[in-house]
Amino acid sequence: MAAGKSGITPRSEDYSSWYNDVIKQAGLSDHSPVRGCMVIKPYGYAIWERVQSVLDGMIKATGHQNAYFPLFIPMSFLTREAEHVEGFAKECAVVTHHRLKAGGEGEAAVVVDPAAELEEPLIVRPTSETIMYSVFADWIESWRDLPLLINQWANVVRWEMRTRPFLRTAEFLWQEGHTAHETLEEAEAEVRKMLDVYATLAEDYMAMPVIKGRKTEAERFAGALHTYCIEALMQDGKALQAGTSHNLGQNFAKAFNVSFTGREGKVEYAWQTSWGVSTRLIGALIMTHSDDNGLVLPPKLAPIEVVVIPIYKSDEDRDLVLGASAELARACEGKIRLHIDDRDQFRPGHKFFEWEKKGVPIRLELGPRDLKENKVVLARRDTGEKSPVSRDGLLEHLVGLLGEIQANLFQRALEFREQSTRRASNYDEFKQILKEHRGLVQAHFSLDPEWEERIKNETKATVRCLPIDAELPAGAQCIFSGAEAKSDALFAIAY
Amino acid sequence: MAAGKSGITPRSEDYSSWYNDVIKQAGLSDHSPVRGCMVIKPYGYAIWERVQSVLDGMIKATGHQNAYFPLFIPMSFLTREAEHVEGFAKECAVVTHHRLKAGGEGEAAVVVDPAAELEEPLIVRPTSETIMYSVFADWIESWRDLPLLINQWANVVRWEMRTRPFLRTAEFLWQEGHTAHETLEEAEAEVRKMLDVYATLAEDYMAMPVIKGRKTEAERFAGALHTYCIEALMQDGKALQAGTSHNLGQNFAKAFNVSFTGREGKVEYAWQTSWGVSTRLIGALIMTHSDDNGLVLPPKLAPIEVVVIPIYKSDEDRDLVLGASAELARACEGKIRLHIDDRDQFRPGHKFFEWEKKGVPIRLELGPRDLKENKVVLARRDTGEKSPVSRDGLLEHLVGLLGEIQANLFQRALEFREQSTRRASNYDEFKQILKEHRGLVQAHFSLDPEWEERIKNETKATVRCLPIDAELPAGAQCIFSGAEAKSDALFAIAY
Repeated sequence: MAAGKSGITPRSEDYSSWYNDVIKQAGLSDHSPVRGCMVIKPYGYAIWERVQSVLDGMIKATGHQNAYFPLFIPMSFLTREAEHVEGFAKECAVVTHHRLKAGGEGEAAVVVDPAAELEEPLIVRPTSETIMYSVFADWIESWRDLPLLINQWANVVRWEMRTRPFLRTAEFLWQEGHTAHETLEEAEAEVRKMLDVYATLAEDYMAMPVIKGRKTEAERFAGALHTYCIEALMQDGKALQAGTSHNLGQNFAKAFNVSFTGREGKVEYAWQTSWGVSTRLIGALIMTHSDDNGLVLPPKLAPIEVVVIPIYKSDEDRDLVLGASAELARACEGKIRLHIDDRDQFRPGHKFFEWEKKGVPIRLELGPRDLKENKVVLARRDTGEKSPVSRDGLLEHLVGLLGEIQANLFQRALEFREQSTRRASNYDEFKQILKEHRGLVQAHFSLDPEWEERIKNETKATVRCLPIDAELPAGAQCIFSGAEAKSDALFAIAY
Repeated sequence: MAAGKSGITPRSEDYSSWYNDVIKQAGLSDHSPVRGCMVIKPYGYAIWERVQSVLDGMIKATGHQNAYFPLFIPMSFLTREAEHVEGFAKECAVVTHHRLKAGGEGEAAVVVDPAAELEEPLIVRPTSETIMYSVFADWIESWRDLPLLINQWANVVRWEMRTRPFLRTAEFLWQEGHTAHETLEEAEAEVRKMLDVYATLAEDYMAMPVIKGRKTEAERFAGALHTYCIEALMQDGKALQAGTSHNLGQNFAKAFNVSFTGREGKVEYAWQTSWGVSTRLIGALIMTHSDDNGLVLPPKLAPIEVVVIPIYKSDEDRDLVLGASAELARACEGKIRLHIDDRDQFRPGHKFFEWEKKGVPIRLELGPRDLKENKVVLARRDTGEKSPVSRDGLLEHLVGLLGEIQANLFQRALEFREQSTRRASNYDEFKQILKEHRGLVQAHFSLDPEWEERIKNETKATVRCLPIDAELPAGAQCIFSGAEAKSDALFAIAY
């Protein structure tokens, strides 16, 4: 039951405890005094900054511009789009007053001033379609103003009942893209383009294989025509939605009067999209690669790619070893994110342990004896291998090895996902697979919402997506109802 | 009265209208449907991203780490530090409920669910001392955990009655640094170090000269021992506080039990600091350099340093000119932020006008005749000078000229400030200076709070700061009361 000396419960014992332990031991986040809200600690935030840096570059390279819209949304805005209100006007933070006043003694020294009630309550944004599109309506007049391609990095709040660090928190950080186009076709192309951007972020940077697909009606975004997503498989056999891209059609444009004078002089409603990923990705990262010794980070998103541990006893050795460390740091500058752990108050063993828990891809041990032989000891976090390497050509070796580790992590995760993906040919088999293995279950499906609901109630599995790449054989039957199958579907129990 | 064809009211007519017009014409911000909250438009946000990028680098280079703390603060937290509650538990956004429910028809379709009232109201952070330090208390155990050097980039909300874009908005973006130290001396060194970082940002990047000084008791941060600031002078003779750095002493440490076991084994309270700058800096930038033709940006913070306007009539010329533009862009890549305005639907004159209003430091006009002579036409935004320059060595010329423009803007602003700084030797003179010139007024001052209040009431001028560099002659008398002067003080009417 208890975590070992690493403070980390083995995954085989309790995956959920393992997850919390990894976060704690790696210093990624902490509890806060506010229900459902976490503190993102410096090391966790540094990973998020890496994600932001990579993704922001891709968002700008695809022609989008960053902007910033208000945190607050007038309550009435939520009512304007009929489906959106169902999805988002529920558990949210409601600002009703704008002033406190002096009260009693101690903690009651201030109270809400009843005289300062707002005429209309404000909602802390759970997502920004409504507030943004009310402004887009002013920005767009003619087809010449289109496409409008906006992105926002922001905090959002959804009052969740059950929260878990990174995966589901009342407040979280994200980016939300919001665009407006002349035609449905352009909007659809945008939605698919950003889905590809998310897949690139996931696979090429997070080393996390994803399946691109479309959501069923039951799972799509409230107010969208349809929603695309990237889905990943976690080590415990549960799926995780890592990013979504919505084709909003003209639904919000009609609700917020986002219209333009078209090329033929006719006033038309814009075709819109929205798409987002959040700090949830850090949860996905943890559950894709980490092990019983702690976090494992893919080099491209690691705040520190190589940590150097100087090993010495005498002052003379100390000078030698720290000198060699500094020399290496200079050689790596601008090429590798390298950190020298020169803290005197900790022994090397303590440091090994700490950086292992923090998932740094490569550890270098610099000791006087090795240095005299022109060597250093190199340990890989992904495989645990440890061996001496020559200092000649060390930078090139490190660069190459970081690439190899990145590729290895992706390959390992891909193999796990492939081994964990099974096809069911009838409902009994479907249930059996979920019971025995969890994982991803492929099935020909009629898309009947009643069956979807029943499957969810009976197995907890949901349609994660209708994979874009999936092919449906001619005449295929739904494995549940026997009716005509409309799509190949990917089911899983999900986070 | 009216703005000319540029849409910009001349400064001599109405400085306040000029300010709003520059913002509108440059596309920096827009109104929002939420009272007191603005939308930061892409071009305005791009300037903020430049500020963030520069400042974040300096904050990290001085050893700080970014983290993220909750948006919400339990109401009772504000009461714990006696002065802080006075300063911040007033006009703020109060979250009292966490759910909406179905209501009537139309805009009343949702209402606040009275059953979902929070046990304790939450305040949307006006600043994060209280929420952060309640967590710091858990992070700090021993002197080995110090110094703790944290920074956060975030949105904050202060329910302001009168708002102006960038200068004073209900929600704004900022960074807030929060640190904890072993000794008062270390905390004081930190506060001064970050004041210097802010002065470097202002002078070396914003090209805005600032005076470093200390606030009087009346103007210091609620809960601080003392507050340092950088003060700048705007074109209309009003001062603007551009950044603050607070030595919090042990005030918050005692309120939130931020304590540590010291080197001698005794439990002590930590010495803390906080410091911040906000999107207000963009308002300062506008009012330091811009003119009646629109925004003027210092090159180092300009999202676009050089804009290229291709000039052509025939298709043949178009190919020639766009080819030369692309060649120049390639040469500048990674060295100069260059943009080619190749929009076909606008004429060159329209583009000149637009980029002038957006304050791009250098405009290049590429026309076929000039190109045949191996020349381009270069226009400087700061001086309005326009002349042909050779394409040979153009990149080096541009790099050099951008440096020259940066230096010129600073020098111009510095000369204006020096001309606008006057010393008063008695109260009549003091009032006369403010009436005739506004500007900065230096005066030997007793620091008597009653006089400070009276001066404010009678002249609207406040003590902007007690300049760090100021020298007080031996035996100097207060120009107001005739009592012994305690400091040289800088007065001004302020934003």
